[in-house]
Formats: sequence, structure tokens, C-alpha cells
Amino acid sequence: MKIRTFLGALVAATALSAPATAQEMEEAAITPAAVVEAADPAEWREIPADDLLVMTLAPDHAGNPREVVIQLIPAPLSTAWTANIRTMAKAHWWDGLSIYRSVDNWVVQWGDGEDPEDPSPKPLPDGIVKTSEHAYAIPWQPEMAETLWGAFGRRAAAETFDNMDGDGPWFADPYASVIGYLRGIPFAGEIETKQDENGERVNRPTHVWPVHCYASVGVARDLSPDAGTGAELYAVIGHAPRQLDRNIAVVGKVIEGIEHLSILPRGTGEYGVYETEAEHTPIVSVRLASELPENARPRFRYLDTESESFARFADVVANRSDAFYKVPAGGADVCNVRVPVVRIED
Amino acid sequence: MKIRTFLGALVAATALSAPATAQEMEEAAITPAAVVEAADPAEWREIPADDLLVMTLAPDHAGNPREVVIQLIPAPLSTAWTANIRTMAKAHWWDGLSIYRSVDNWVVQWGDGEDPEDPSPKPLPDGIVKTSEHAYAIPWQPEMAETLWGAFGRRAAAETFDNMDGDGPWFADPYASVIGYLRGIPFAGEIETKQDENGERVNRPTHVWPVHCYASVGVARDLSPDAGTGAELYAVIGHAPRQLDRNIAVVGKVIEGIEHLSILPRGTGEYGVYETEAEHTPIVSVRLASELPENARPRFRYLDTESESFARFADVVANRSDAFYKVPAGGADVCNVRVPVVRIED
Repeated sequence: MKIRTFLGALVAATALSAPATAQEMEEAAITPAAVVEAADPAEWREIPADDLLVMTLAPDHAGNPREVVIQLIPAPLSTAWTANIRTMAKAHWWDGLSIYRSVDNWVVQWGDGEDPEDPSPKPLPDGIVKTSEHAYAIPWQPEMAETLWGAFGRRAAAETFDNMDGDGPWFADPYASVIGYLRGIPFAGEIETKQDENGERVNRPTHVWPVHCYASVGVARDLSPDAGTGAELYAVIGHAPRQLDRNIAVVGKVIEGIEHLSILPRGTGEYGVYETEAEHTPIVSVRLASELPENARPRFRYLDTESESFARFADVVANRSDAFYKVPAGGADVCNVRVPVVRIED
Repeated sequence: MKIRTFLGALVAATALSAPATAQEMEEAAITPAAVVEAADPAEWREIPADDLLVMTLAPDHAGNPREVVIQLIPAPLSTAWTANIRTMAKAHWWDGLSIYRSVDNWVVQWGDGEDPEDPSPKPLPDGIVKTSEHAYAIPWQPEMAETLWGAFGRRAAAETFDNMDGDGPWFADPYASVIGYLRGIPFAGEIETKQDENGERVNRPTHVWPVHCYASVGVARDLSPDAGTGAELYAVIGHAPRQLDRNIAVVGKVIEGIEHLSILPRGTGEYGVYETEAEHTPIVSVRLASELPENARPRFRYLDTESESFARFADVVANRSDAFYKVPAGGADVCNVRVPVVRIED
């Protein structure tokens, strides 16, 4: 049955090449979902309520509720923009605004959409901090190493940092020297080659930055030196626009309800802006989960990107050999290793 | 104005770093759109009417017409599946079938969606040829070289084939040894290192295959050794699922009307299948443009991927330095260099 199999079986199934041992046979047939399923409960991390932004849209035409949940990027990759977003959420600043733009294979955008002919921006709440384009990438600090690389990253470090001519295509990326995952967030980094105390050449990061993937959330801005406040946000609804990395602030990612954004009709005005008020999707409210009554807070956990299970998950994603696959890719791009996130049900 | 600038200005604007000469200044500020605009008319190629598949869907809820145009992959990357698709189109085989599945950040799928509990596939028309999974990748033939690489590829050849340790991240790809474009179609390739007649090590492709990008169209299939007939097709509506490359047949790409597929509500049944008949989108007809009366044929042209302008376009895409951009990426992935295609207006 084509529908069923095109997605790939969700359970382990017959391997296609002939593995030598029972263990290899089991390994060969395993799916990414099976790795996630088998992860130890201790390998999951709950996302703090202060990092969850809940956007409630007006119900759809059939009256169905629409809620979009965004995970804000945690320290040490978080920035002035995430602080501003928390300030605006607490001031209920987005309530009554709308989604005003949708461009196919690009972004859906919301907030205070200004009219270029008659700019009259809604005044921002008190406490908004100044942002700077110099913060799109974050300077590397040696103490980040353990946190950043984890189990997955230790292999990256071995293969990439200390062996730049290594043969694994795993980490090949046309946009950056290295890629990795930090507390559930995909990022990229720039490296430089230095001599260590023994005169050996070593490669170490200089900067890291969160990357644009499907469902990533970023901050719209004017031309440089403006870097945006956070008042207008967009979510990616197409192929990862990685060329925007380091050119615009990435502040989080949609972890639930992205389909409420991705299926919105594309705007027919310039730059995909909706031409009529009726096309806008009203924003009822945007709240931090931490502001909501405890029994109304959505809760989520993600597979710790520093865990052994995440490293294994990434390996399996890059080397699919379960029933549907004939040729394992031998690699994966940073956006196709999608950090497992699940809602915690009471 | 944020809406305007986030997309990047469509005209050349002030460069951000200080170029040394007037020519460099002009180069630094140029946009991909400006390169396309400046291309010589002789650098465009019309897509043959026999390579265009026109899928007419039932009008949307507001009564608006919906037409999706697919470019079928031309020789030498075309395969048995494209032949089958032409046979099915000529038999009007898809007429009256429907779009039966939509999965966010994955695919929209149509054709004869079989019920796993009660399989009763619609009989295929005469003349359907047998397909084989061995044809997902196409063996390299030396005479492909000139056609395949063109102006863009000659640089790839110089940088990649003869200098595998070259420093350009441009062609880095976690899924394949090389990438390129053939007659408007993005592809990837596998290479091997051999000794030439002078005993020098040279790198040459062994196989090439069309890749999965946003809007790519592929052939749904059962488990191996089934390779699909072409009766059920899908279009990618999310981040490029490159892990499917060489595991399923890519037969073309949507060049107009992808938004009629990408905004369809996601299915709530298993594997994103629609649970009610009302959710299906009826297919009114699927025709080759060559079957339509001449005055009703849509016509398209693409920027010759072997032209100097395409090579320049790819360079500019990979090194954005127009007004919106602070940091040129220095590279681009195969799916983000989107071959320019425009409708030919009478």
C-alpha cells in the first residue's frame, strides 16, 4: 500500500542488505522513531514555561480553534530579541494584531504590519531593549564546549575540528564550517585554525548562530543597521532559507501548530502581503506559558540533544536502512535532523 | 518598512562592504533577480510541450480555478516513469481521481489512493512499462559531461572533480559527492577516483540522479522491489527530503501553481490521508500541454542551466551582498539555487 509505505514504516522491519549478525540485523532495520521510542526517560528535557510562547489565532472558517506554540531559544544562544518578545507577550502587545503576509516556500509573517505609505507603528511597551545586528552570531566561549557538543557533538568535534579533511560527508554544509544542536536548537558555527600550546594545529569555533529551518521563527527588520525589535515575527514555511542565517535574528521555532500557518492562503499583494482585511488572520492573544494558569499551560519535552539517544537518532536519520530505503544517504543536513519534541499529556 | 525589506530589494542597492572599484561596487550590489533580468534572450530555453503536465483541480471554495503545471524531467535524466506518466496523461487516466493525502513539511499526494483494507486499484492503461529501482540513479556516460556541467558545472568540475580537497564550501552537500543542474533540473552525483592514461588521479562520476527539492514531483511506491508505475504522484511541500534521493523516482517539478497544493489542509488520518471524501480535492483533468489545442497550451522558458548567466545567478545566490544582506553565505545548497522559470505570455 503506497500511502503506508512511502512514509516509511514506523516500526523496525526487514533490512534490505544482508547484515552479518543478529545485532547488525537489528541495527540495520531500526527507524528514527524507534530510537526515540527507546530513549531513556532521563534523556528527555522539559522546555521551561518561560521559553514557550502560545499564540492563539481566531478560529478557522469551520470554527476550529488554532493555537501555535513557539519554543524560544534558550541561553546561551538567546539574545536581546527573546527578552523583548517576553516583554511584549507580558504586555499583551500582539493581541488584536494579525498575520498579514504569506509567501509560498518562504515565510508567514505577523505583528504590526506597517503600511509603507502611511507608517504608524503601534507604540512598543516599556522595557524594549535595543538590538544590534552584531548579535546575529554569538561569540564562542570555551565553556560552551561541553554544553554545545554533547554526545552528538563529540563526534563532530572528532571528525570536524580535529580532522577537517575527514571523509565523512555527515557534516558537510554549504553555509557554515560546522553544525550542531544546543538544547533542542539547530545551530551552525564558524571556525578558525590555531596552534595549541604544543604547536599543533587545532580548529576551534569563533562564532555560533541558530539557523533557519522549516518552522524557525525570526525577527523581521528594516535595512541595516536596524535589527528589528521582535514586534514583527515570521515563521519559515518552506525549504530552509539558510542564506538568512547571520543576516536576521532567529529566536525560536514552532513546535506545535505550524500547519495553522503553513496552510494559510498565499498573499497576492507585493511581497505576499494580503490585499484585503478579510484575508488577515486575527491574533487573539500571545502569552508566555508561564503567564497562563498552571492547569492551562501546555507542556513539552524534547530529546536532550546532548544525549546518547539523540546522537543515535541523528545517525539513524542519516543512514536510513529500514524497509522503505534502498540506499542510506550517508548524511543529513542540519534541518533534516528534526529534534524530537512531544507534548506532555497530563 | 519591514515587509518590503525582509524579502530583499529586487533592484540593485547600496553595497554594505566597501568595494574597491566601480565594477566591484556594481557586482557587490547585484541581486539574483537582476542577473536573471539581464540574461541574454538567447540564454533562455523553452520547455517542450511534451514535457509539461497540466493538472486542473476542481475550483476552490470561492470558485477560483486551480491549475498546477509540472515540468517532466528531460533526457538524459528521464526514465521509464516519465514515459508512463505521458501514457497515463494521454489516456486521461487521472481524470476523476483526487488529492488524497497532505502531510505538513512533507508531501501532497494524488492519484488512485488505495484503501489498505480493500485494495481495488483502477486498471492502468495499455502501454505502461515496467519500472525498476535500479533506475533511480542513472549511470554516468562520458558524453553527458558537456551537457551536464555547462558553465556552472565547469567550475564544479574544476573545484570538485580535480580538487576534491578544495576550500570552497560552495558544493558541500551531506547527501552526495557532487551537485549540478541539467536542463533546468537539479541533480546530484556519486564519484569515484581513477587513474587517467597519464597515471594521474582523477575523479569522475559513476551515477547521477535528480534530487528532491521543494516542489519536486515523485512516484509513490510500495516496498522494494516495487518501484511505482507513476499512477500515484506526490509533490514536496516542505524542506527538501533528500534522504529519499535514490530511494524513489523523481520525475519532475511543479513550475506553476504549487500553492494550490501547499495550502491544502493537512490530512488527519494515518499518514496524512484525508478521513472524509469532502476533504479530497478532485482532479478534473491531467493533460500533456502537447495534447491541448495550440492556443490553450501554457508555455514556459527556463534560464539555461548551461549558460553563463545561470552560473552568475548561482554565484550571486550564494553570495548575497545586496542591501538586505550583512554576511554573504559563501555557498548555497542545491535546492536553494532555484532555476528561474517564467511563463511565456503571448
